[in-house]
Amino acid sequence: MKAEYVNPFITAAGQAFSTMLDCQIRREGLSLKDNASPSHEISGVIGLSGRAAGTVVLSFSESLALKAAGTMLMTEYTEVNGDVIDAVGELANMVAGAAKAQLEELQLSISLPNVITGKGHVVRFPSSVNPICVTFATDWGPFTLEVGLEPVAEPVPA
Amino acid sequence: MKAEYVNPFITAAGQAFSTMLDCQIRREGLSLKDNASPSHEISGVIGLSGRAAGTVVLSFSESLALKAAGTMLMTEYTEVNGDVIDAVGELANMVAGAAKAQLEELQLSISLPNVITGKGHVVRFPSSVNPICVTFATDWGPFTLEVGLEPVAEPVPA
Repeated sequence: MKAEYVNPFITAAGQAFSTMLDCQIRREGLSLKDNASPSHEISGVIGLSGRAAGTVVLSFSESLALKAAGTMLMTEYTEVNGDVIDAVGELANMVAGAAKAQLEELQLSISLPNVITGKGHVVRFPSSVNPICVTFATDWGPFTLEVGLEPVAEPVPA
Repeated sequence: MKAEYVNPFITAAGQAFSTMLDCQIRREGLSLKDNASPSHEISGVIGLSGRAAGTVVLSFSESLALKAAGTMLMTEYTEVNGDVIDAVGELANMVAGAAKAQLEELQLSISLPNVITGKGHVVRFPSSVNPICVTFATDWGPFTLEVGLEPVAEPVPA
């Protein structure tokens, strides 16, 4: 994967947290994703397609997901329910949407968000993709951003 | 979700299992997905976008995933490794690709497959979507097909 593809997603994550949650994020590390490492407890997954195909995954600690949903919906959550799932999906959607606008040349379109729950779940990418994983800290708990995106072969003109 | 959107995925699953695995599938049930019910152990997830946006999920029991990968790669697997992950992703990709061709009017494009592992993981859809879940049996174990797909609002002409 081209490393420059990941920057629009990092910028978009900072903007989404700042505008939606009034929460500052601190980038802690950037690495190639080890495919077998578990994500956090709640992952928002959005498919990307166009001149490149791939996925963006935002994986939240439970504490961060609860606090983020509570802030967006102005209430307090103590367990992961449908509202919390939708809030995580919506944050992933905002990040994918803003990054897509920055990566205009790829003409990306985005799928609906799915949210994966379950302690110890792992979101794996095809072995042909080398996704980049960025870890972040916030005052509410950690999250990771994973982006795997590969150019699609252009159809040969007839 | 329009129920007719799911039929091309059912047909595609039967074709993929028949041609790739020489394995017949038997449809057991069709229901609206209860969002909180766990999937099987290994789920292939592909995002869809175009005139509709959504996701297709193929969730395999471990026994079926091992046997399917072994048949595709002509070897024997006793644990879920990178080959098995890629085989599950490739089956999901074939199903999405064949269904996309049948749903021409939606002009779908498909993301790369992600594969989710972890006992008890749940793949959840946005609460605005009513995904349809189809359960299948095979001689190697069960799997489910989940499709959630919603039309995208057309941009208003300027």
